[in-house]
Parts: sequence; structure tokens; C-alpha cells
Amino acid sequence: MIKFKVPATSANIGPGFDCLGLAFSFCNEYQVEKSNKMFIEGCDPVFNNKNNEFNKAFNATMKVLNKKGSYHLYEIPKIPSSRGLGSSASVIVAGCKTANILYGNNKLTNEDIFNISTKIEGHPDNVAAAIFGGLTASVRLNNGKYYCKKYKISNKLYFTALIPDFKTQTQIARKLLPQKYAKNDVISTISHSILMVEALKSGDFNLLKTVCKDCIHEPYRKQLIKDYDNIKKIVEKNGDAVLLISGSGPTLLAISNNASFSNNLILKNTKATWTIKPVKIKKGGI
Amino acid sequence: MIKFKVPATSANIGPGFDCLGLAFSFCNEYQVEKSNKMFIEGCDPVFNNKNNEFNKAFNATMKVLNKKGSYHLYEIPKIPSSRGLGSSASVIVAGCKTANILYGNNKLTNEDIFNISTKIEGHPDNVAAAIFGGLTASVRLNNGKYYCKKYKISNKLYFTALIPDFKTQTQIARKLLPQKYAKNDVISTISHSILMVEALKSGDFNLLKTVCKDCIHEPYRKQLIKDYDNIKKIVEKNGDAVLLISGSGPTLLAISNNASFSNNLILKNTKATWTIKPVKIKKGGI
Repeated sequence: MIKFKVPATSANIGPGFDCLGLAFSFCNEYQVEKSNKMFIEGCDPVFNNKNNEFNKAFNATMKVLNKKGSYHLYEIPKIPSSRGLGSSASVIVAGCKTANILYGNNKLTNEDIFNISTKIEGHPDNVAAAIFGGLTASVRLNNGKYYCKKYKISNKLYFTALIPDFKTQTQIARKLLPQKYAKNDVISTISHSILMVEALKSGDFNLLKTVCKDCIHEPYRKQLIKDYDNIKKIVEKNGDAVLLISGSGPTLLAISNNASFSNNLILKNTKATWTIKPVKIKKGGI
Repeated sequence: MIKFKVPATSANIGPGFDCLGLAFSFCNEYQVEKSNKMFIEGCDPVFNNKNNEFNKAFNATMKVLNKKGSYHLYEIPKIPSSRGLGSSASVIVAGCKTANILYGNNKLTNEDIFNISTKIEGHPDNVAAAIFGGLTASVRLNNGKYYCKKYKISNKLYFTALIPDFKTQTQIARKLLPQKYAKNDVISTISHSILMVEALKSGDFNLLKTVCKDCIHEPYRKQLIKDYDNIKKIVEKNGDAVLLISGSGPTLLAISNNASFSNNLILKNTKATWTIKPVKIKKGGI
């Protein structure tokens, strides 16, 4: 029985839509061993079937390794699902890693796992952060493979996940995006996304307050999160935090330069019930 | 008589429209001294009047310094004008610097000069590179001031300016841009602009070949440069260089990982006459 963890992640960080990801220190845990027959326990029994994403990732990796075999998985899920915290990316990366550990003698690199996982997930930002840790920026190369650059985040910044008691589906959230964007929004997104990386690396909070603005998905997706405007007002009222939608939501992520921010935060008059969860950045990779 | 130089620059680097700038080691030279009356020589006599950009920048800086006075300027222009090589940014920065040297006891910082210059130029990318050197990323902060992050560029990359014998006007080039952009172009621009910085810093040429693509201005402005498609084909045919429009053109900038690139380059069947000028990056600020 081999144990490992794959973390929760946040994608679409500020103006970094489909590119920037963040890894958090809370993780799903996976215990795996070789088996003649697939068997999955620990999670919702609905996932104990061949169509779940862990199994798809395991099979895709076995194909790359040119191996045959199956596994017994005991999962300890700690990442809430369908909340924009990368639970599916964690499961997909874990499926790849399981095949690589049990049947691949660990010969696949994290870059290999990143590429296999991205194909299954459909976008690179969650799996990149899950695999490499820290802040990641991903792009599809001309040869079809994906490239990821990892950055260290300043320890002057404090992250708080605000997790509601309802779910959203990424596919529905994606359909809300417009087909075209105004020139001024596009131009500001260029400088904002480049300097978002700089603000997170340096911990320059004034810069972060300027550049942590998104006009690509948040204005369209916030309708799925009825408390968005109210919570944004509360989070940003003292000028010591910025708020963004984590992935396609509904979790919201606050970034502050104040270590006491999450302790002092009180969400009033919300329609849903929200869990305030201070989260640390996971610095290392898997 | 005080002498100083302000370099040629390139803006809109690849996918970094209105944000990324590059400083080159060839510079306009300025010799200045206090005078009771404005007098400008060395350049085209048409510029010896109060409406030229050097004088506007000088006056704006004198206002900040709360000083009165004028100057005698002898300019040695080496940056061709209206070619997309930042000749106006050089002149504007020089006007600010002249006031600061002659009447300000150098008390204004480069950040101050950056902010004054940007207001006169209208966009920050050329003046940022002219002032700070290297590769610069600029953004307008919430307080109305501009912020610039400077990056060092890898010495594995070689730059060649291709300068034609005709001019374009930035205002005309700006009018060619569409009012809206397709979602896919916007999304790819985010990852491309973030990782363009990484490619230039690291010298990772495969990454550069992927991310040095622009869909914001080049497709619309290339009509002003009749040789664009032909030259792009020639420059990129061996896979050892990428081509971009410098600023709003008509100069084109090739970036290669091959030190002999500019020596080996022959531009055939062009409508205009093109000067092939290898250029080095200016690492330091003014």
C-alpha cells in the first residue's frame, strides 16, 4: 500500500484566465496498491466505476507506459467537489501518479504527468498547480505539449478560501462567457496578467490591488454566486484584501496582506452558508 | 554643457500590447545647458519650436519642480523618427531629464520621470524601456500613477531591427485596431503575454517560438507594411528566429537564438528598401 497526497488548487487567478494556478496545502490523500480488478473506496460509492476521472487518468497513463494491470484505491477526500478547488484535477493527477508508481517504476516525470493530466482535464491550470505547487503559468506549445512555469509566492500574502454550501458545474460556468471582448478590456488584461505574477511573487499589495481584476469571466459568472457582490464589498471594505473567483467558482478566494484577515472576517446577510477557510500555499510539487 | 543619452526602444513586444517594452543600445544623444531662451539645434529645424515633445516634457517637469527657466539643446539624433523605434519616447524622456538636471538638482527619481513622460507620450511601454532599460512591463495603478517592472533578458537571444525607408504614424496605426476581439484570441493572449516575459528572461527559444504571437495588433497593422508577409516568411524559414512589429511599425524586430542570424539574413523581392540592423539590449537605465 503506497500513500500520497495531491493538493487542492485554484485556477483562473485574477486576470490569469486558463493560465494561472495556485496550489494549497490541503490535499486529498490516496492509498493505492496493485490489484487484478479496479476497486475504489473511501469516496462517494458513485465514483466506484470505470468512468470516473481517476480511472481515466490511470488508464491513459498505463497506455503511455504500455502496461496492463489494475489497482485498489482507498481515497481520503478532503477537497470539496464541484466547488472550484480543483478536486477533479487532484483525482486526475492521482490516477496518473498511481499508474506511474505501481506499474511505471516512477519513470514518468512530473512534466509527463502534467501533459497526460491536462488532456483529461481539458485545461492546464489546476493540474499544473497540483503537480508543481506554488503559482503556475501554463501554455500549450506548438508541438501540442504543455509548458508550465512555476513561481514562488511571497510570504507577505495570506489566502482565505470562502466555500459555500452549494455547487456549480464548470461546463455551465463556461457557457456563460461571451464570444467577444471589448478592446480596452483585452488591453488591460495583458498588463494585469503579466503583473499579477509579479504582485504575487513580490507581495507588493498595492500592485496586487491594481492588477487583481478580471474582465474575462468574473463579470459573467458572478450570477451563479448570489452572494458575490455582497461578499466582495465585505472582503474589500478595509482595503486589506482582494477577492477573486476560484476556478469557475463558487468558491471565492481572498488575498490579504493582513495575517489576521480571516480571523476578523464576518460574512453577514448572505443567502448561502459560507465556510471561511484560511489556506496556505503548497510550495513543493507532488 | 551636460551630455546624456536616451535609447531607442521597441513597444508592444509580441503579445504584450501596450505593456512590454525593450531598450536598445543605440541612443539619441543630448547636450543641454541653461539658457534664458529655448534654442534647439542638431535635429530637423522643424522641431525648433515650443510645440515639440522635448519642450512639452521639459515644461511639464519644470511645473512639477516649480521652477522657471529655459535651455539650449544640441541633439544628435540616431533613432530614425516615425519608425516604431521610440524616437518620441527618447525625446520626451530627454526633456524631463534636462529639466531635472539643469533646474531640479536631480531630485526627481526615474519613477517620477516615468510618470511625467507617460502622460505626455500617452502610453507607458516605450518610455518605461527608455528610462529603466532591459525588458519592462508597465501598468497604470489605481492612484493614476504608473508602475514598471524591469526584467533582465537572456544573453542567449539576438535582436535585429529591420528598418524600412518609409514612415507610419502611430495614430493611423491605432485606428486600424478592431473594437472587439474573439474569446479564444483573448484567452491565448493571457498565457502568451505572461510567458513571453519568461521566454525573454530565460532565453528558452522553443517557448519564445510558441508565445511570440500577437493577435491584438499585428493582423490589423501589417497592411501598413506591404513587405510584412514576405519578410516574416524569410525571417522564420529556418526556425531560428521570430518576427514581430516594433511598436506600431513599420520597423520589424527579429529575435533569434543564432548569433549569426543578422549576418546571414538577405531580404529578397521587397517593395521597400530595408536596413538590417543588429541591435543589443541596453541593460541599464538612464
